[in-house]
Amino acid sequence: MADTLSLAVIPGDGIGTEVTAEALKVLGAVLDGGPAKVETTEYDLGARRWHATGETLPDSVLAEIRRHDAILLGAVGDPGVPSGVLERGLLLRLRFELDQYVNLRPSVLYPGVATPLADPGTVDFVVVREGTEGPYVGNGGALRVGTPAEIATEVSVNTAYGVERVVRDAFRRAAARPRRKLTLVHKHNVLVHAGHLWRRTVEAVGAEFPSVTVDYLHVDAATIFLVTDPARFDVIVTDNLFGDILTDLAAAITGGIGLAASGNVNPDRTTPSMFEPVHGSAPDIAGQQKADPTAAVLSVAMLLEHLGLDDAAARVQGAVATDLGRRASGEISGPRRTAEVGDALAALAS
Amino acid sequence: MADTLSLAVIPGDGIGTEVTAEALKVLGAVLDGGPAKVETTEYDLGARRWHATGETLPDSVLAEIRRHDAILLGAVGDPGVPSGVLERGLLLRLRFELDQYVNLRPSVLYPGVATPLADPGTVDFVVVREGTEGPYVGNGGALRVGTPAEIATEVSVNTAYGVERVVRDAFRRAAARPRRKLTLVHKHNVLVHAGHLWRRTVEAVGAEFPSVTVDYLHVDAATIFLVTDPARFDVIVTDNLFGDILTDLAAAITGGIGLAASGNVNPDRTTPSMFEPVHGSAPDIAGQQKADPTAAVLSVAMLLEHLGLDDAAARVQGAVATDLGRRASGEISGPRRTAEVGDALAALAS
Ligand SMILES: CC(C)[C@H](C(=O)O)[C@@H](O)C(=O)O
Ligand SMILES: CC(C)[C@H](C(=O)O)[C@@H](O)C(=O)O
Repeated sequence: MADTLSLAVIPGDGIGTEVTAEALKVLGAVLDGGPAKVETTEYDLGARRWHATGETLPDSVLAEIRRHDAILLGAVGDPGVPSGVLERGLLLRLRFELDQYVNLRPSVLYPGVATPLADPGTVDFVVVREGTEGPYVGNGGALRVGTPAEIATEVSVNTAYGVERVVRDAFRRAAARPRRKLTLVHKHNVLVHAGHLWRRTVEAVGAEFPSVTVDYLHVDAATIFLVTDPARFDVIVTDNLFGDILTDLAAAITGGIGLAASGNVNPDRTTPSMFEPVHGSAPDIAGQQKADPTAAVLSVAMLLEHLGLDDAAARVQGAVATDLGRRASGEISGPRRTAEVGDALAALAS
Repeated sequence: MADTLSLAVIPGDGIGTEVTAEALKVLGAVLDGGPAKVETTEYDLGARRWHATGETLPDSVLAEIRRHDAILLGAVGDPGVPSGVLERGLLLRLRFELDQYVNLRPSVLYPGVATPLADPGTVDFVVVREGTEGPYVGNGGALRVGTPAEIATEVSVNTAYGVERVVRDAFRRAAARPRRKLTLVHKHNVLVHAGHLWRRTVEAVGAEFPSVTVDYLHVDAATIFLVTDPARFDVIVTDNLFGDILTDLAAAITGGIGLAASGNVNPDRTTPSMFEPVHGSAPDIAGQQKADPTAAVLSVAMLLEHLGLDDAAARVQGAVATDLGRRASGEISGPRRTAEVGDALAALAS
C-alpha cells in the first residue's frame, strides 16, 4: 500500500451518513501522525441520488471508485425506492463488479454486551460468505406477470471457480485462528447439485489444510446451534444467501446489528474491497443522532486490517472493546448521540 | 371422514421407529371407545429398505399410501445413505406427489420449557411454509462435474397458482386466530422476481381478509426477531427454503426439535396429508429408548385436528402440556425412556 490511502466513501442514506461521519472521524484519529495518510473522495450514491436523477451507479462513477484503495459504505435505501432497485443496482452491483467474493462477517460477543441468549458462552467466530454467486446472481425471470399463470424463477449459480476461491480463503483464515475449525453450511440434502459442489470443494481444499478440522451443518441445523451453542463455531463458510441469513442471526446474538461490521473483500487485491456495517439506513431514526456508529467504526478496523495497517486496526478494535466495557459496567449510561460515541471512540483509538 | 380412519404409517429409521410407536400408542388411547376407529398399515420405507433393495418409494407403494386418510411419518435416514437420496426420493417425493402444499409448523413455548432465550415472552405462532415449490423443486443441474469448469445450478420455481393457494391458507389461519396477524417472510430486495410474486399475492389475497394485519420481513431480519422478539409473530407465511430455516430456529427457541411437530397438509383433502416430527432419525441415540416422543405425539394431535377430531386433538395437546408442566415443576425429573413418556401421555390423553 502507498503512504496515502485513497478511500472512496459512500455515506448513503439515513443513518448511513451519520455513522460514516463517525467512522471517518475515528479513521482520521487513528492514522493521525502515523505512517499512512488517508485521502477520501465522497460519492453521492443511494436513495437521494436515485430520487433526484434515477441513477443507481453510473458506469463513470464505478470506474472512478475502482481506482481507490478501498471503499467505506454507510447504508443505502429509503422507503420511497422500490425494493431491489438500490440493492441490485448499487450494493450488489458494487460487490459483483468489484469481484468482492469474500463477504467477511465476524461475530464476537464482547464482555458485558447484552445478548438475547441466556447462556451464550464465549462467542468468537467469523462467517466467510460467498459474495459473487449463488441465488444473488440475478439470473431469475418472470413470465405472464400479474396473471394467474405467472411463473417466477430465481437461479442459484455456483461454479467450481467461485466456490473454490472462497473456500480456500476460509481455510486460510481458519488455519490462522487458534481453534482452526471450519464449518461448511449448506443444504446439500435438498440442493444436491450446488450442495455437492460445495461439499466436494471443501473436501479437496481441506486436504491442503490438514491442521484445520472440518465439519458440516445443514443451514437449518446451523440456525439451531447459533442459538443453543454459538461457541462451537470458529469459521463458517457458506453461500451468498445462507450467509446473509446466518450473519443477521449471528449479529442478533452478539449484541445486534448496531455492532456488526462486514467487509466485502477481494483477497487478490485486484480491485478495492468495501467495508460496511451490516445494518441498513434505518429511516425511522435517521437524522436524529440516535444511531450507534460502532458497526461502522468496526468496519473501519476491518478496512485497516485488510490494508495491512494492523496496529491501527487493533487500536480501533481496542477502543470499541473499551467503550463497550464502559457501557456494560455502567460507567457510561443512558443514550449518547452518534457523534458522542464517535468522539469517545476517536479519543480512545488515538 | 369415515368412522374408520385409515392411517399409513412410515416409522422410518433410527428414533423414527421408537417415537412412532409412542405416537400410535397415544393415538390408540385417545380414540379408544370414541366415535372413530383407526386402522393402520405400516410401510417399510427409508434407509433400511434402500440398503436392502435400492428402492426409495416404489410407484406401487405410493399408490397404496395415496388411498389412506392420512400418513404418520417418524423420521428417515442414516449416515450410510448418500445425502439427498431419501430426502429427494422419499420425503420430498411424498410431499410433492401428494401435493402437500401447506407445510404447517406451530411454535408454542409451553410454560416452564427450557429455551435458550433469556426473555422470550409469550411465544405462540405458526409457520405456514410452502411445500411444493421454491428452491425445493429439484430443477437444478450440473455441468462438467468434478472439473475446474464445473457449474451447478438450483432453480427456485414459484407460480401464481402455488403461491396464491398457500397464501390463502395462511390468511384463513390468521383470521381464525385471536391476534389475526400475518407476516410474509421473503427476500424481495434480492430475489426480485419470486419476491415480488409473493408480495403481490399477499396484497391481493389480503384484500379478501380485511380483519388480518399484514406485515413483511426480509428473511435475514426475521431471524433477528425470532431471537429478540418472537412474541411479535402470529402467522408467518414463507417459501419452502426460508420456511425450512425459520422453523428449525423457531423450534430451537421453543424447547428444541424434540418438541416440534409438523403437518404436510393438502387443505383441499384430495390427497392424504402427512404428519411428522421436525427432528430427524438421530442415529447417535437410536435404539436406546432415549428419544423424546413428544414431537411425534404432537404431530398426532395435528393429524387429529386435520381430520376434524378436535376433541381428541385437544386431549393429546393437553396431555403434552401437562407432562411438560410436570417436567418443569420437577414432579418428573431425570431421563425417562421413550416408552415411559408415551405411556404417560397415553394415560393423560385417555
Ligand atoms: C441489502 C441486502 C441486499 C444485503 C444482502 O442481502 O446482502 C444485506 O442484507 C446484507 O446482508 O448486506
Ligand atoms: C430432511 C429435509 C429434506 C427436510 C426439509 O428440508 O424440508 C427437513 O429439514 C424438514 O424441515 O422437514
